[in-house]
Amino acid sequence: MKYAVGIDWGGTTISIGLVSEKGEIIKKIKHDTADFGKPNTFFKKISPLIAQVCKGKKNIMGIGVGAPGFIAPEKGYIFDLPNIAGWKKIEFSKLMEKETSHKTYIDNDVNVIALAEQSYGAGKGYDNILCLTLGTGVGGGLILNGSLYHGAGYNAGEIGHYPLKPGGALCGCGNKGCLEAYIGNSKITAYAKSKMRKEKKTLLWEMCGNDINSLTPKHVGEAAKKGDKLAVEIWDYVGKNLAVVLAGVINLLNIERIVIGGGVALAGKPLFDSIKKHTKEMALDLLYKKTSIVSAKFKEGAGIIGGASLVFNANKKK
Amino acid sequence: MKYAVGIDWGGTTISIGLVSEKGEIIKKIKHDTADFGKPNTFFKKISPLIAQVCKGKKNIMGIGVGAPGFIAPEKGYIFDLPNIAGWKKIEFSKLMEKETSHKTYIDNDVNVIALAEQSYGAGKGYDNILCLTLGTGVGGGLILNGSLYHGAGYNAGEIGHYPLKPGGALCGCGNKGCLEAYIGNSKITAYAKSKMRKEKKTLLWEMCGNDINSLTPKHVGEAAKKGDKLAVEIWDYVGKNLAVVLAGVINLLNIERIVIGGGVALAGKPLFDSIKKHTKEMALDLLYKKTSIVSAKFKEGAGIIGGASLVFNANKKK
Repeated sequence: MKYAVGIDWGGTTISIGLVSEKGEIIKKIKHDTADFGKPNTFFKKISPLIAQVCKGKKNIMGIGVGAPGFIAPEKGYIFDLPNIAGWKKIEFSKLMEKETSHKTYIDNDVNVIALAEQSYGAGKGYDNILCLTLGTGVGGGLILNGSLYHGAGYNAGEIGHYPLKPGGALCGCGNKGCLEAYIGNSKITAYAKSKMRKEKKTLLWEMCGNDINSLTPKHVGEAAKKGDKLAVEIWDYVGKNLAVVLAGVINLLNIERIVIGGGVALAGKPLFDSIKKHTKEMALDLLYKKTSIVSAKFKEGAGIIGGASLVFNANKKK
Repeated sequence: MKYAVGIDWGGTTISIGLVSEKGEIIKKIKHDTADFGKPNTFFKKISPLIAQVCKGKKNIMGIGVGAPGFIAPEKGYIFDLPNIAGWKKIEFSKLMEKETSHKTYIDNDVNVIALAEQSYGAGKGYDNILCLTLGTGVGGGLILNGSLYHGAGYNAGEIGHYPLKPGGALCGCGNKGCLEAYIGNSKITAYAKSKMRKEKKTLLWEMCGNDINSLTPKHVGEAAKKGDKLAVEIWDYVGKNLAVVLAGVINLLNIERIVIGGGVALAGKPLFDSIKKHTKEMALDLLYKKTSIVSAKFKEGAGIIGGASLVFNANKKK
């Protein structure tokens, strides 16, 4: 059996795992991102942890990393990790290889998740996939013609900034009307609150212990699963907004699989039913028929498995 | 010098040309599409015309065809040409090769135009291009990672059916609110007429000889070039609507070049100024900066040159 080290590098925590070629996580370590510091200490500190997860195994094919920022994967180069100080213009793979003697690959975190789903998850067997992560923001990873698509400057996938309602709600990016400004985590909460205030007969009040300020999309998800009318309507609002962009992407790219993950996607059936219904209304029949919209397979482990997939894929291509 | 035969196969006319590897049309013949008939007569009738354009030249690398319909390019197979009777499920390349002894390639007409622009036109030197054709409909051809992108079922590029205003104006496809339902040729005319009726002080009345029913987008283009306020406003309406979708595509695909052609694009500066202004407003700064929006180089010859490019490209890849 062959193995690879997958590293899920987030703004808060770093998870380091050993993954088998079958996509199973064999061993896993989690640390605070802050523990590793800037490049001058990072590689020295992470190296023994990598050795630790690999202990007792042969055939380690390399290290694959998903990182939150702007990366040139062919060169293993980090342009910038906006949320982690000290990581501008770093030859990451080269430095990691020097320290660990393992061939190293790195890509954007959202792309790595898409790769995990294609390699071992809900995208398996498909060559043209849009993988969405619904959370604080709306992230997108594209697999086209069987491979990750990066775009001209490695910045493809910014589907959260699709101009859904031009001139509308202010988005974190500074523009107005982006998809994310309607279906980002906090926007869903704000929308739900505004609806709750006008409706006393909803399970949402009970869910949040009558404290509207503690309401989260998770509460809305649970209420909808219990059939709460208002909660179902809230997910229909989210689904309809997302569907506009999905229909556009289906018509433009003729993709065959849309994989949706992230915390917000845990709302499950009420959300997915709405997404499918409205996407069907807006996409061309011929193209919608050939596209399936499904829930992501992986939750926490996606970054580790996807990181390892970077390694296994690179070895397949050789 | 190497040559290829490029065939621009339209619903009304077929143009057959000999193209040099430099992208120059050396010789050209035009016929009514109806003259060639269905597959049982088509190949016999077109073969001598192909021989005619090739006469006196050596190094003919093959034949490349752009056709209006659903095509599987790898197999040279026509699923359907909706506007030309008798062309369902035809092994086009195989039959053409049998008749002419020239290696034959075929692709969708919009894709072939995108390839012409990439090979010899306004997309030269770029690997990630959206090529738009603005006319009766809004067609799109995508070059991603240097090659034509076809999608899972060879139907990518239906950008005209992007849901611009969900639930809005009825589109020819049966859905409501598609981009095409706002900026297709006849929709621009209808919008211009509705504005003219409320405004006597516009050059548009003079342009159409005071016969509003004879108004075309060409009149609106000419009036705008002369500085007519209403005409400029009409192009701003068109540009703004198109910009929503272009900003979305830039953010999603991180393309570097948008090439816009077709009859409507002849409006020129007033239209392009509006497209650029509004796309800049809605796209992410980082991505907009790396994208240029330009006018297509080719007009009539694009289909012939693009057809020939299919041949030259296939030979490069070998």
